[in-house]
Amino acid sequence: MPGFTHFQHAQPTTLAHHLLAYEQAFSRDFARLNEAYTRVNQCPLGAAAFASTGYPINRELAAQLLGFDSLVVNTMDAVATRDFALEVLGDLTILMANVSRLCEELIIWSTTFVRFVELDDAFCSTSSIMPQKKNPDTAEIMRAKTGSVFGAYTGAILAIKGLPMSYNRDLQELTPNIWRGMRDAKQSLRLLNDMLASATFKPDRMAEEAGKGFSSATELADTLVRNFGLPFRTAHTIVGRAVQKGTLDIATLDTAATEITASTLSARGLTQKDIEAALDVRYSISLRKAPGGPAPLAVKIAIDERKKQLDADDTLIEQRLKKVSDAEKDLMAEARRLVP
Amino acid sequence: MPGFTHFQHAQPTTLAHHLLAYEQAFSRDFARLNEAYTRVNQCPLGAAAFASTGYPINRELAAQLLGFDSLVVNTMDAVATRDFALEVLGDLTILMANVSRLCEELIIWSTTFVRFVELDDAFCSTSSIMPQKKNPDTAEIMRAKTGSVFGAYTGAILAIKGLPMSYNRDLQELTPNIWRGMRDAKQSLRLLNDMLASATFKPDRMAEEAGKGFSSATELADTLVRNFGLPFRTAHTIVGRAVQKGTLDIATLDTAATEITASTLSARGLTQKDIEAALDVRYSISLRKAPGGPAPLAVKIAIDERKKQLDADDTLIEQRLKKVSDAEKDLMAEARRLVP
Amino acid sequence: MPGFTHFQHAQPTTLAHHLLAYEQAFSRDFARLNEAYTRVNQCPLGAAAFASTGYPINRELAAQLLGFDSLVVNTMDAVATRDFALEVLGDLTILMANVSRLCEELIIWSTTFVRFVELDDAFCSTSSIMPQKKNPDTAEIMRAKTGSVFGAYTGAILAIKGLPMSYNRDLQELTPNIWRGMRDAKQSLRLLNDMLASATFKPDRMAEEAGKGFSSATELADTLVRNFGLPFRTAHTIVGRAVQKGTLDIATLDTAATEITASTLSARGLTQKDIEAALDVRYSISLRKAPGGPAPLAVKIAIDERKKQLDADDTLIEQRLKKVSDAEKDLMAEARRLVP
Amino acid sequence: MPGFTHFQHAQPTTLAHHLLAYEQAFSRDFARLNEAYTRVNQCPLGAAAFASTGYPINRELAAQLLGFDSLVVNTMDAVATRDFALEVLGDLTILMANVSRLCEELIIWSTTFVRFVELDDAFCSTSSIMPQKKNPDTAEIMRAKTGSVFGAYTGAILAIKGLPMSYNRDLQELTPNIWRGMRDAKQSLRLLNDMLASATFKPDRMAEEAGKGFSSATELADTLVRNFGLPFRTAHTIVGRAVQKGTLDIATLDTAATEITASTLSARGLTQKDIEAALDVRYSISLRKAPGGPAPLAVKIAIDERKKQLDADDTLIEQRLKKVSDAEKDLMAEARRLVP
Repeated sequence: MPGFTHFQHAQPTTLAHHLLAYEQAFSRDFARLNEAYTRVNQCPLGAAAFASTGYPINRELAAQLLGFDSLVVNTMDAVATRDFALEVLGDLTILMANVSRLCEELIIWSTTFVRFVELDDAFCSTSSIMPQKKNPDTAEIMRAKTGSVFGAYTGAILAIKGLPMSYNRDLQELTPNIWRGMRDAKQSLRLLNDMLASATFKPDRMAEEAGKGFSSATELADTLVRNFGLPFRTAHTIVGRAVQKGTLDIATLDTAATEITASTLSARGLTQKDIEAALDVRYSISLRKAPGGPAPLAVKIAIDERKKQLDADDTLIEQRLKKVSDAEKDLMAEARRLVP
Repeated sequence: MPGFTHFQHAQPTTLAHHLLAYEQAFSRDFARLNEAYTRVNQCPLGAAAFASTGYPINRELAAQLLGFDSLVVNTMDAVATRDFALEVLGDLTILMANVSRLCEELIIWSTTFVRFVELDDAFCSTSSIMPQKKNPDTAEIMRAKTGSVFGAYTGAILAIKGLPMSYNRDLQELTPNIWRGMRDAKQSLRLLNDMLASATFKPDRMAEEAGKGFSSATELADTLVRNFGLPFRTAHTIVGRAVQKGTLDIATLDTAATEITASTLSARGLTQKDIEAALDVRYSISLRKAPGGPAPLAVKIAIDERKKQLDADDTLIEQRLKKVSDAEKDLMAEARRLVP
Repeated sequence: MPGFTHFQHAQPTTLAHHLLAYEQAFSRDFARLNEAYTRVNQCPLGAAAFASTGYPINRELAAQLLGFDSLVVNTMDAVATRDFALEVLGDLTILMANVSRLCEELIIWSTTFVRFVELDDAFCSTSSIMPQKKNPDTAEIMRAKTGSVFGAYTGAILAIKGLPMSYNRDLQELTPNIWRGMRDAKQSLRLLNDMLASATFKPDRMAEEAGKGFSSATELADTLVRNFGLPFRTAHTIVGRAVQKGTLDIATLDTAATEITASTLSARGLTQKDIEAALDVRYSISLRKAPGGPAPLAVKIAIDERKKQLDADDTLIEQRLKKVSDAEKDLMAEARRLVP
Repeated sequence: MPGFTHFQHAQPTTLAHHLLAYEQAFSRDFARLNEAYTRVNQCPLGAAAFASTGYPINRELAAQLLGFDSLVVNTMDAVATRDFALEVLGDLTILMANVSRLCEELIIWSTTFVRFVELDDAFCSTSSIMPQKKNPDTAEIMRAKTGSVFGAYTGAILAIKGLPMSYNRDLQELTPNIWRGMRDAKQSLRLLNDMLASATFKPDRMAEEAGKGFSSATELADTLVRNFGLPFRTAHTIVGRAVQKGTLDIATLDTAATEITASTLSARGLTQKDIEAALDVRYSISLRKAPGGPAPLAVKIAIDERKKQLDADDTLIEQRLKKVSDAEKDLMAEARRLVP
């Protein structure tokens, strides 16, 4: 498929390479939320109004029985802070910005112009006026939800700004913002998952476009460098000039080279066959085998690594859920001990 | 000093307990930025335009020589993502929200009404019209800077939203927002540090206010529970009624108790001396010795723990700086090996 | 009462003058919303999907029967724009920022430190822990609502950014943001109105504080200029120096003047009586009779003018409501003519 | 050209109709800023520290000599408010959101997929890696600037929120946000103007795409209603079904009609010629002649009206500029009268 910069055909790549870019971004979103959890899963209990209490209490035991990892130690901070919530809303905002980029692509890829993907009817709507329409509504709404999640974050930041210690009722107004932001993000992820799983990507259309817009021109310039001894800047200029003239064949390249270097590339041994080899999309991709590159081998390695990371993330979540459910059992056992 | 909820005198606490609330919040800010660093300190080099390159490169070696911890593996993500910057701006926004709260308090504490602190002249200004003025300008500007940092974050989020892969020039507009947000936050922290170090807190004024506004009323209610067998809800109601009547002496409490329970507290053995003991500010504080509470012992333990955490954070920063400077040395050595 | 800059006692003013500042700000909020209404009350009907329709329609008649003032003429714009809604949310954000400032003051004025106002119990809450508490919850929640309204605006802006023509489903996500923002603002205004109407202001406490913090020092400096021929900068410096020394009596002022000008003010004829006259709070206020100033006469004129403006605004609203209800009657009459 | 909803080919329209949608939106932006000017162009002079002054001043004369339209009457409001600046930043945010939509379209229209426009080289960049690239950088940066302008507004709102009367140094931090927002918006408009003026639109490519994606299907359904007596819902369903089958010829429509209504459209007299007439793009457009519609006549009327509006706006600006320069002359004359 064509890869894009500035939404212009840039260089050939593969769908797998393109989608792995999103996987890697979502993986960082997971990492952020996971780290936020260590600050969320702290127990404020025992702080009372902010000065703790004169009653003899055991804060550590309460935290343990409720499945928390640790205490929010200072009792005034325990009552006054909402940074753990702001952090989660911030992480979800970044996550939704990633979602909005993917949705933008799915919307554009669904157009009559591009046709790289067909979204399942379940995620599209028709029009009450236009009988022919199939609109990518779900992707559009998710794109817009980025705004609502960030709006929730904005509301929360504004409410917190400039509040003195310790508790102020302003903090109550954070609650609807927090729940709204979390709900919107959760629903969007679930929908995105199903929408991607049910989408039909069109490899033939992608392949058809992969070489358009002179997308292998960089490889041709690189070939002039590697095999014909030109400095990259000169090769770049010659190929660019030929593109402006409208074709990348030996005649046009020779004309361009003569204008720029006063000698032809044929004279250096370049043939039409060399050009065609360099412009071949699959060849160009196969060369890009550095870690994280689009060459099939590099992509395969990346997929294997990402699967391992996903498994590790799954394990982490399970451990956390188990800790909470274990604590719940202990809590019930302790309660029954007191009230047999 | 009086502790506040809803900015009303609430319960007595101490300045150390109050300031430790901020220290703990700033410590979480450090933790967030530290975790962000692991995502910032990844090397995108070798991604080229987004499809890596056909030249044989060694991405790991380049990353190592430049002092990075790891690679941004996928080369399209390496070019397209700015989430590491959004994350930092988000963390700085939360940090500045904490700064704004502390500044709000310093401003109010400097008023003629409160006089809990005198800020050093270096952080104040006078007025061109009013000869008597000493204004807490620095604290006010820092409070406002919260907005500028969040504005930088907002600008960055809006620029990112809905961008397709991979690079788009929109990303260039993030740069001034990132630098501005970081500069404002850095300057604010430096100023805050100096402003706090040079501020004169007024323990006598704090002590004078500590018991006002019936701030020990909770302790009195607790005493009725602990020593005189009342349910907390009843004790709370009686003390609340007495406060409305304007005094917390034995006569008023007995009247209130009679209205509510049809019997006096004197009958249960409560004396004026018991009341005075309960209302004693130092006594009330000394009872609150749970971890993170305001009792001097609990505060001492907290300070020791926080110092250890600060040392650990310092060590971490030093290690990170050392890693970068070591890499620089290796890089220069390698460069000299190539160009002796 | 004392007027404040930087929340420090600055110069004496009156409660009426202080409250008129808010009235004037709210009046601009009304003007903005009123102007927005001319852009809101335009009829998009007849735009169909964005290209209008091949059926012979009469857009002007439809607009008139529905009570609109005019058409959104271009049919693509009619479908694609939401700027009228963004404008209203923007106007409500500014309005709520004004509300937040007034609420901040009511909260601080309710503290034990200040006691300038007592809010009615209906707008306060007590504490489940602390029996003595009366907290200004309603004012705090309204202060926080500023964030929620701005959050709604932020969500709407983010959803709109970068959308191509004409309709995109993203626009649907604006709707909850618009309604939420309008509902929060409307409720806040209604509550604010009732809260102010039921609040008890404390003129004695205000008067007690009016002269504190050397708040008439400016008037004293002005007196030195007007009656004793000093340049303002010199007078300002002498008075400022005397404030630092802690008193504004003739002895201290003479010492300060000697340090600065090498001659006393007594030598110029200044007496202790002149000083006391200048420092008199009521006298200082009475001099400030420029339009919009705090002198009782200026305030009276201002109140009369504001009342006229309020009446004009009321008339405008009534006309607008009447136009809508007249249109509804015409619409029903037309409908009955068609279906008798 | 094709008009779009959900970025899918929807119905045929014309470039003029499409661009008029933006003109109308920008016209509202002008109206907003113009109304904001009436609140910006008010004179705060004479407010002094907030309580005006005891010196005998003439606020109206000062305002007149400085070219202001009126006073910010209340002197505390004059010092404390920044709503006039917030309003301008809000108006510029909406304006930039409109700019971002137009830029998004120019970027997409420049792609290899669409090719509706060729932006002048002066507004594009090439790539240091890819020799063939021509990237719409200016449009991308303007799209991103929407974020920076809104970021400036956000910073200003956050700084204002919760400030008590009257002046607080926080207000100083608004200044860089205000200037930055105004500068970014001004530069963007200037660039947009030049970029549009130098762009080459491609009517042939637009015409080629105008009828694609069954974009005249609505007209066909309307024809079935108008000329063959079908209810719109039935006509809509039949045409929609035929689109799913892949063609809009008489045979497919008859099959679809039979499935849905158990009778053919041919039986009602529909011929292949009727279908072709209905699907004709120019015919479809020519029917849409309601005010604001895409029919050439309606567009011509709209252009004439918009030109009149633009002239009126120009006159308004000239009057305002003249008022300021006249005031400047009067001011200099008065000054010379005092100091001959």
